[in-house]
Amino acid sequence: MKNLKTTQDIARQVTEIGRRARSASHELMGLGPEQKNKILNFMADSLEKLREQIRAENLIDLEEAKEKGLTDAMVDRLDLNEERLNSMIQGVRDIAALPDPVGRVLKSWKKENGLEFNKTSVPIGVIGMIYESRPNVTADAAALCLKASNAIILRGGSEALRSNRAIADAMLEGGREAGLPAYALQLIPVRSRDAVTNLITMDQYVDLIIPRGGEGLIRAVAENATVPVLKHYKGVCHVFVDRNADLSKALEITINAKCQRPGVCNAAETLLVDQSIANDWLPVVAGALRERHVELRGCDKSTGIVPDMNRATEEDWYTEYLDLILSVKIVDGIEEAVDHINRYGSGHSDAVVTEDPEHQDYFGKRVDSAAVYINASTRFTDGAEFGMGAEIGISTDRLHARGPVALEELTTYKYVVTGQGQIKE
Amino acid sequence: MKNLKTTQDIARQVTEIGRRARSASHELMGLGPEQKNKILNFMADSLEKLREQIRAENLIDLEEAKEKGLTDAMVDRLDLNEERLNSMIQGVRDIAALPDPVGRVLKSWKKENGLEFNKTSVPIGVIGMIYESRPNVTADAAALCLKASNAIILRGGSEALRSNRAIADAMLEGGREAGLPAYALQLIPVRSRDAVTNLITMDQYVDLIIPRGGEGLIRAVAENATVPVLKHYKGVCHVFVDRNADLSKALEITINAKCQRPGVCNAAETLLVDQSIANDWLPVVAGALRERHVELRGCDKSTGIVPDMNRATEEDWYTEYLDLILSVKIVDGIEEAVDHINRYGSGHSDAVVTEDPEHQDYFGKRVDSAAVYINASTRFTDGAEFGMGAEIGISTDRLHARGPVALEELTTYKYVVTGQGQIKE
Repeated sequence: MKNLKTTQDIARQVTEIGRRARSASHELMGLGPEQKNKILNFMADSLEKLREQIRAENLIDLEEAKEKGLTDAMVDRLDLNEERLNSMIQGVRDIAALPDPVGRVLKSWKKENGLEFNKTSVPIGVIGMIYESRPNVTADAAALCLKASNAIILRGGSEALRSNRAIADAMLEGGREAGLPAYALQLIPVRSRDAVTNLITMDQYVDLIIPRGGEGLIRAVAENATVPVLKHYKGVCHVFVDRNADLSKALEITINAKCQRPGVCNAAETLLVDQSIANDWLPVVAGALRERHVELRGCDKSTGIVPDMNRATEEDWYTEYLDLILSVKIVDGIEEAVDHINRYGSGHSDAVVTEDPEHQDYFGKRVDSAAVYINASTRFTDGAEFGMGAEIGISTDRLHARGPVALEELTTYKYVVTGQGQIKE
Repeated sequence: MKNLKTTQDIARQVTEIGRRARSASHELMGLGPEQKNKILNFMADSLEKLREQIRAENLIDLEEAKEKGLTDAMVDRLDLNEERLNSMIQGVRDIAALPDPVGRVLKSWKKENGLEFNKTSVPIGVIGMIYESRPNVTADAAALCLKASNAIILRGGSEALRSNRAIADAMLEGGREAGLPAYALQLIPVRSRDAVTNLITMDQYVDLIIPRGGEGLIRAVAENATVPVLKHYKGVCHVFVDRNADLSKALEITINAKCQRPGVCNAAETLLVDQSIANDWLPVVAGALRERHVELRGCDKSTGIVPDMNRATEEDWYTEYLDLILSVKIVDGIEEAVDHINRYGSGHSDAVVTEDPEHQDYFGKRVDSAAVYINASTRFTDGAEFGMGAEIGISTDRLHARGPVALEELTTYKYVVTGQGQIKE
């Protein structure tokens, strides 16, 4: 452990990290795809070579976590066992194998005056990653950011500092051998929360903050940051079963969206049912969900049809249960369903089940969410299911990136304009 | 004039404006291109019909501005004379004639499981526009935002409140006749600055703030906003004349970038010259610029070659003069030129003059600016010159939009995923 540091020392140290990251980000612009992939593969080799040391540091973190009385769930997240180490290392190799997201010509055109415009993808610059206890995020986030030619500053959970440092050191050792610019990957080596405050207010050196963790962490970061923050607040996802739904699809989609993995952001939290089918179908779906131990909380009309449901309160409609609980509302048609979703939803993932093409179109156009599903489960919102390869998170923001954030979303663009001496008249 | 209002009254009023705008933004998603264009053309007709009233209100604003002792420049900006009114009205018609930016399929693909993905452009939602004295911005900004199906909340300069209100009222009158959803266009009708504070912290209702005005206004908005802000700070633009430059192009481009309109953000502020050509060429360009009354401020080496130049200080390299002043630095090659631009520049527009393809490529890749010019003047950075039609501003931010912000930049995207009952395994 380092000595305790003053707030000022920490501010100076973090500022220096930022300054160096900015300078490294300019170096990174000069690396071609082959060199970046070589760097990533050397990093994976080095993680492999140093796995015993990484595990040894991780065991000290685990020991300390148990002594401090962290919950079993937190200790489990911290545990970098053999299988997780393997999959972390393979993850770095998989990212190396993905197509390069930088230097794509997004659009090009020529004007009558002979100027040629190329809108080209470029790195964002310097990305600050703030995350909680899982140490594998250190390797995932670093590999994704570097593949998109961004410099990265990592700030993991203080309980995982030794594990994170061992992972970052191993990646640096491998990376340097393959030509990684100095300071392209840095980890903030102090436990104090002051370091986070410094990191998220360093506009001059940091271009984007990505926090990964609970809603509390993300709100705290967003409220105090002056650097832009890519936020993932919550997933209050809906399944709407329309009057023209194929009811067997509706049943399967509802069960899948709620039960297949209830603790994740793209699981459904509210079921909306068109009133014209509610009398017949609601008892069916309620029975199937109960068999799967789902607690139902219904609106007045729903509890009229299925009397042994709990009553939903206004707050239920806003709630991300992350659990085997589902709120249920009967609506008088697709308009009310869409209004409900746009009002109470979190703009994450929402599904309609309907065979009516006009209703499919209406729902697709009107629901204001990152991912809108027509006759499919909300559970598909993630980078791998979208075919983007690895993802660094899912955005519930509206600007820059919505939904899964993968390599392309870790880039921005610039215009390269080529002329033959043109001047403005 | 309204009665003075308390801070609380204003907060309530602005919150209500926000709530209504959010709801209108959902209505706007239902409008097709023809209807939006009809709305915009009816707005233009209505501005035409009510031009006498608009001018009458504008004359009262002008009278009051003079009484208050505003500068001549400010009074001039406020003046909505016949010609400016004509061009404002024509501007609305021109925007109606542009292609619809919403509903474009940006990318589409199909996965083996049969899911079809469509990444589609959608409106941002609710945009808050904060601007200073020019009343024509009221019509420009409203037309651009509505064309991209965004609800807009306008907050103009308090000295232009009567003019802005008359313009907004006329547009509303025309728009309503053509089916504009209620509250899609709103103007904050109070002069108090509290209203701005409320507007920029209303995350739940406002998706983006676009401030237009001096750097001070923009910094104040950015520092206090919790809503994302699209910023245009300043343009510290460079022209670098490489050792392999065509020197007649270099001379023309330098003169054009500095002198054609020195008071704008895409005018050059610093000239960088490769040392191997400086002895011969610097006296030539210095003479030509002096003829055009440009004050030169040089580095040590430059003043060694052209002795009657002023000496540049460290601060000069960061300065946006917006005037006939140019700082001049001799660099030892393209690497130093690029380092200087990335360090002191504002990431706006930077040009290289060189015939060497490798240097063109190096400059294009390494200069970290929204617009990078190869053998052309920096003065081309604007929506019209880029072929985007009208623009709402120029972004020096790195995320969401860089450079000219026009209709496409006023949209974001969502994924519409269509299946046949797919559930996650």
